[in-house]
Amino acid sequence: MSVATDLVSIDEIRAAAGRIERYAVRTPLLAPPLGRPMGTGWAGLYLKPEVLQPMGAFKIRGAVNAVAALDPEVRARGVVAHSSGNHAQAVAFAARAFGIAAHIVIPENAPTRKVEATRAYGATVDLVPVAERVTRAEQVVRETGMTMIPPFDHRDVIAGQGTIGLEIAEDTADLGEPIAAVLVPVSGGGLISGIAAALAALAPEVAVIGVEPELAGDAAESFRAGRRIAWRAEDTGRTCADGLRVPCVGELTWAHIRSYVRDIITVTEDEILAATRALALDERIVAEPSGATSVAAHLFHGAELPTGARVAVVSGGNIDPALLARLLCGS
Amino acid sequence: MSVATDLVSIDEIRAAAGRIERYAVRTPLLAPPLGRPMGTGWAGLYLKPEVLQPMGAFKIRGAVNAVAALDPEVRARGVVAHSSGNHAQAVAFAARAFGIAAHIVIPENAPTRKVEATRAYGATVDLVPVAERVTRAEQVVRETGMTMIPPFDHRDVIAGQGTIGLEIAEDTADLGEPIAAVLVPVSGGGLISGIAAALAALAPEVAVIGVEPELAGDAAESFRAGRRIAWRAEDTGRTCADGLRVPCVGELTWAHIRSYVRDIITVTEDEILAATRALALDERIVAEPSGATSVAAHLFHGAELPTGARVAVVSGGNIDPALLARLLCGS
Repeated sequence: MSVATDLVSIDEIRAAAGRIERYAVRTPLLAPPLGRPMGTGWAGLYLKPEVLQPMGAFKIRGAVNAVAALDPEVRARGVVAHSSGNHAQAVAFAARAFGIAAHIVIPENAPTRKVEATRAYGATVDLVPVAERVTRAEQVVRETGMTMIPPFDHRDVIAGQGTIGLEIAEDTADLGEPIAAVLVPVSGGGLISGIAAALAALAPEVAVIGVEPELAGDAAESFRAGRRIAWRAEDTGRTCADGLRVPCVGELTWAHIRSYVRDIITVTEDEILAATRALALDERIVAEPSGATSVAAHLFHGAELPTGARVAVVSGGNIDPALLARLLCGS
Repeated sequence: MSVATDLVSIDEIRAAAGRIERYAVRTPLLAPPLGRPMGTGWAGLYLKPEVLQPMGAFKIRGAVNAVAALDPEVRARGVVAHSSGNHAQAVAFAARAFGIAAHIVIPENAPTRKVEATRAYGATVDLVPVAERVTRAEQVVRETGMTMIPPFDHRDVIAGQGTIGLEIAEDTADLGEPIAAVLVPVSGGGLISGIAAALAALAPEVAVIGVEPELAGDAAESFRAGRRIAWRAEDTGRTCADGLRVPCVGELTWAHIRSYVRDIITVTEDEILAATRALALDERIVAEPSGATSVAAHLFHGAELPTGARVAVVSGGNIDPALLARLLCGS
């Protein structure tokens, strides 16, 4: 099979859009450029605020699509996921949407807030030592016949995230100005793969640009090298952008990135935090650091990006309240 | 002329929707009820997040509609407004959208942040002693031939705000559950008048409920008494909800409230601040206290409201950063 046929198609993304319609928010494109105060770094930037999704992140799109795509008899047995972050809540949400059981394996050092949020969607939460999370999840799959929903390297998950690209293509079609670039945070690569696949089909002239923290720049390094390079988890763990610490993109997501992504750039920790603060104060959107990296790229790395109007995908908003408070005080 | 013919019609609201389409964000209805974690006060509540508008509040709708509705020759001379709040920025924005001059009279004790934001849209800002703001604005109108854009008691302004009701009617039509009530912050009454007029035409079974701070409860008292009662500005000035300090609803807005509004209830300062905090942490939306009063009504006064699903209009998000930081720390 050639690489091209392995990639997620626009038809799969359109099918995903139909499946998630009842559960995910059709997020707006913010804001009309006239809305930007003059002389600020915001000029020329549109936002796609995925923080408005029910559980606070784009992950709901991929998780719901993956659960919806399961054979009903298989689905009825329930789903399993391992995650310390937004994927846990997304799979719990998707399971609840379809009235099935969810077994979520979470490392025991995860923040209580995230554990509680996952339980609040009705999932069974299984707290285990960090090193055991994958083996425990695989064990549950073997013993129960439940289906594992992977966080990014899965075509239904990628197709679900791709609905964001579909919406961006629709909403930018009649803006009256062309879009030069779409800026997307990169971790395992599911989000950028789906968006890039959608835009390759619908708006191939738009450059899809990945954004990573410098401290977790494995995808940027891989992109330069032309091959997948994994970083050590101890290294990617240094960034404040806790949703972007995956040490290597996936096989399937790498195939999409190689085929469709124009560039991957990195931003500093200070730039990420400044963008998080600016989103809250200037745009009234609570983003988590991971979600603000795309905005940091526009605000601080414009010279490395294509000239013209840009869209930043603000991928999630589940920030530690104490961190947000500190950022707001630091004026 | 009978009272009924004086009220803003659904046709005027539909015309406003066409006029503001290019400038205002079509805000989404958040979030699907499945998205609400179980066992929280959020159950049964949808949000209409007007904080996502370009300058952070619904006011842009009325201001843009009023400017758009002017005769082009009159409009070309420019517009005037007096305001210490979101109306100032909204009129500045609308003027910029139409490429005309805006002269905004702002009391000299207004926060620097708001003055700067108004200037950032290109308006001429005229700082005057509080007592002189109306006379100064009227003087500018006389001397320049510019047109005054009033903050609420004007049918084009009401029709513009009414587009929110139009969108709520559209977005709730296929939810699969009926909406019992729409909760709307009340100050001068322009927002609730427009929304109530739209829903009276499109979804008359939905109860439109006004929400005021106890400390600025002039509209609630007026509603009970069946006649307009003004409070003293020193009294309404006590609430933290600085957008809701107008001491009396307008004549035209009062006619809409009497005809279309089911009830007006009040919420405490603590409830307003708790709702502001919860919106940031649970819904990732930065609201100002005025904008969070509707959510406070749902979270803390459910027993006084119709039973069933509700929509809270979160009217604006221009909060003092230091206040938001304090709320986030206070867990």
